[in-house]
Amino acid sequence: MMIDLNSDMGESFGAYTIGADEEVLRWVTSANVACGWHGGDPQVMRRTLQRAKGLGVRVGAHPSYPDLLGFGRRIMQITREEARDYVLYQIGALRAFAEALGVRLQHVKPHGAIYNAAVGDRELSLGIAEGVADAGGDLILVGLPGSELVRAGTEVGLRVAREAFGDRAYNEDGTLVSRKIAGSLITDPDAVAERALDFTRGTLKAITGKAIRIEADTICLHGDTPGAGAIARRVRERLEAAGITPRPMGEFVR
Amino acid sequence: MMIDLNSDMGESFGAYTIGADEEVLRWVTSANVACGWHGGDPQVMRRTLQRAKGLGVRVGAHPSYPDLLGFGRRIMQITREEARDYVLYQIGALRAFAEALGVRLQHVKPHGAIYNAAVGDRELSLGIAEGVADAGGDLILVGLPGSELVRAGTEVGLRVAREAFGDRAYNEDGTLVSRKIAGSLITDPDAVAERALDFTRGTLKAITGKAIRIEADTICLHGDTPGAGAIARRVRERLEAAGITPRPMGEFVR
Amino acid sequence: MMIDLNSDMGESFGAYTIGADEEVLRWVTSANVACGWHGGDPQVMRRTLQRAKGLGVRVGAHPSYPDLLGFGRRIMQITREEARDYVLYQIGALRAFAEALGVRLQHVKPHGAIYNAAVGDRELSLGIAEGVADAGGDLILVGLPGSELVRAGTEVGLRVAREAFGDRAYNEDGTLVSRKIAGSLITDPDAVAERALDFTRGTLKAITGKAIRIEADTICLHGDTPGAGAIARRVRERLEAAGITPRPMGEFVR
Amino acid sequence: MMIDLNSDMGESFGAYTIGADEEVLRWVTSANVACGWHGGDPQVMRRTLQRAKGLGVRVGAHPSYPDLLGFGRRIMQITREEARDYVLYQIGALRAFAEALGVRLQHVKPHGAIYNAAVGDRELSLGIAEGVADAGGDLILVGLPGSELVRAGTEVGLRVAREAFGDRAYNEDGTLVSRKIAGSLITDPDAVAERALDFTRGTLKAITGKAIRIEADTICLHGDTPGAGAIARRVRERLEAAGITPRPMGEFVR
Repeated sequence: MMIDLNSDMGESFGAYTIGADEEVLRWVTSANVACGWHGGDPQVMRRTLQRAKGLGVRVGAHPSYPDLLGFGRRIMQITREEARDYVLYQIGALRAFAEALGVRLQHVKPHGAIYNAAVGDRELSLGIAEGVADAGGDLILVGLPGSELVRAGTEVGLRVAREAFGDRAYNEDGTLVSRKIAGSLITDPDAVAERALDFTRGTLKAITGKAIRIEADTICLHGDTPGAGAIARRVRERLEAAGITPRPMGEFVR
Repeated sequence: MMIDLNSDMGESFGAYTIGADEEVLRWVTSANVACGWHGGDPQVMRRTLQRAKGLGVRVGAHPSYPDLLGFGRRIMQITREEARDYVLYQIGALRAFAEALGVRLQHVKPHGAIYNAAVGDRELSLGIAEGVADAGGDLILVGLPGSELVRAGTEVGLRVAREAFGDRAYNEDGTLVSRKIAGSLITDPDAVAERALDFTRGTLKAITGKAIRIEADTICLHGDTPGAGAIARRVRERLEAAGITPRPMGEFVR
Repeated sequence: MMIDLNSDMGESFGAYTIGADEEVLRWVTSANVACGWHGGDPQVMRRTLQRAKGLGVRVGAHPSYPDLLGFGRRIMQITREEARDYVLYQIGALRAFAEALGVRLQHVKPHGAIYNAAVGDRELSLGIAEGVADAGGDLILVGLPGSELVRAGTEVGLRVAREAFGDRAYNEDGTLVSRKIAGSLITDPDAVAERALDFTRGTLKAITGKAIRIEADTICLHGDTPGAGAIARRVRERLEAAGITPRPMGEFVR
Repeated sequence: MMIDLNSDMGESFGAYTIGADEEVLRWVTSANVACGWHGGDPQVMRRTLQRAKGLGVRVGAHPSYPDLLGFGRRIMQITREEARDYVLYQIGALRAFAEALGVRLQHVKPHGAIYNAAVGDRELSLGIAEGVADAGGDLILVGLPGSELVRAGTEVGLRVAREAFGDRAYNEDGTLVSRKIAGSLITDPDAVAERALDFTRGTLKAITGKAIRIEADTICLHGDTPGAGAIARRVRERLEAAGITPRPMGEFVR
């Protein structure tokens, strides 16, 4: 069983600091690095890549809508061509820093609202996938299992990684329970760790109690929740205790 | 005698159009493409590179201070590290589009105020040059002859191109006459063309009338002045009538 | 019969110029002035208000989503509170210039995508209306007849003005025909002028040919279409030839 | 003896939080509220004004260069007219929220680099002062004693408040010791409090040990330094123990 642990990183901006990057980075295998459109700036990008390199964590781009004010969390109606070119721009900017540091980009994980919008939006997903394909470099596109994004990625010839969320409840159809519903967020480190283990077995108990199938290549560990560092550590340790060593997605996703 | 003709391109932004890109692009050998910080946006960048490719014009990055409101024409007191990372970010973003289109970046010419500020600012110039060096790819750095920018470029091991301005009057020491002084701008196409020819001979009549020495690898043709297309054409035709075919700087700058 | 003619103005930004402000301003009675979020900047705002004042044209705020890159033409999923505060911010900024010039703001017309999104979105419309109400000053809110925006305006106690479009085809239910459908845009100045006259009679021929009822307090004259100045003039002259002198909405909307 | 205590507030932006607003707000008499150009956003502005109102703290605008990435801490070469209009825009935006909450703006204190640049720049200072004057409302302009800013304020007919810094060392000529010099920052709460008391007596020991004269109407308490809340409290308590109750500058500055 192969599993990757990913987390969003480098979302600080100018004088503003956000996230528990240093604590979480120690436990993950892949870091999604913000590219300046919802968070991150050129100096934060360099610093984040340096840190990840120092810890041997693989890095990818975390592109967003152009919405710093909304931290990329608000859906915007952009065209397929805009999506393609926005994603390509951000990958390119980040890659210049990666190459300067002697690091290769491994993957692309869209951020926040554009990730969510892409779940059911084929045109948007194709735009994102085309932007990643245009970037070359055999980048892996990360998306929700069963989403249009994963489908579009496959369609344009990309490797894709399917992502699961240890701290979110699931509906029986494999979609995430809305954050507005009580019980949708799981904050107990042990519970999150247990679910992470479930993902490696391809199964999960939905919020209704019913066991469902879920296929995941990578598990998202949020860096901006309280206790993020502690949760990340528990997940990592629980997996390793079960004999599973998380590996960067680039090593096993085809 | 080898000479390159360059012009700033792709400075339109979103709904806003600026410059006479299409007219001027036909006569130059190198296009400096805006990267979204003073002008340009991802879609304009793609379109501009496509056009340049179609006409066989070489392309480079035209990075700027982060000042869209001021079109990059206002000096900002940034640090050497900020300059380095801002330049690297913009080169990377543009390069992703260039590579997607199968085009190589040839050079980097800083835009507007950061170009001017770099003339006499060693720290800023080193920052810019380090950003270009970090980007790799054997990029040529374009600057004013005798400037700190050209010096810094050489110092960090870059190829550098020295730039002359056909439509600007010069002081006896080889610096440009301030735009605030009457006679500083030359708008007659024939006069500009004649001066372009002078540059290829390494000599020029300063505003005082005295003949001065000037060494130039590339001549800047402004794209946002009235009659820009006509001037560009006249310069090109005058040079060719004198037996000088402009060549992309990448072909002869060492 | 009372009718106002309005047009969007002051959408230039920094080095970028857009619109035929000077030509169109001569024929309208109300100018919707951009506030810097999709277009416009502090200096453009001052200049636009000065011009309008010089011609005796009444002025209002033209607030937008925070989307300069998209010129405010892309729907963003913002909350009611965000809409309220974004609108209030922009009105306040513009009003400071108006007061400095001894001019009162007359109205608020949301721009582009936020105007369109508000047609059927009650929460968004309430947010916008609350922002306008928070601004005080007896401002008129401009919206599409029958829209949630007009309803929300009335609900929070604002005066509202119903807007019609002389250059757009209408469906039988009084909504605008999508721009994607052939025949949706009317560009012949005489045809636009004739429709403007129809609006003053409360009737209009829909795209199907059927006569429909339409109530309008103000007619929008686009400033960014080719021939905008000529169309504006024709509309004004046609109305006056029919004995109808356009009046600023503030003089008759209750 | 009359003295005001001021602090910068509301510099958070979108998802980003900065400053110890809630702790510091309890001890000051005047809050300088960011207006969205270096920090702050419409929702933060509303919230900050509400909080200040709740505690009876007077409020003013804290306008900046347009430099969110640099948090307004980098000098930009803007013109007098740009300064005027940038300041007016930001005051207007903030005032709309103040008026909606039934609060009057008391003062304007430029932020960071534009404040520092204005110390010795007459043109910039006149631009700022003209922007404040354009805003009307009898606003007080806050600046360094002896600065061009204070001079310009007086010249255009504004009330001005002279500001002192309890946590900064002074040169013998009354200017601030550069932050780059050891000993320039005073972080011991008791020392800061003692200096605050000195200001009320019009005297101060310069970094050289020599006693100098200093005239101050308001003392700045930084909100973004470690222990900001504790320092603010100590200053307030020390002044009150000496029989001096800080008062809002609007009550005594002429």
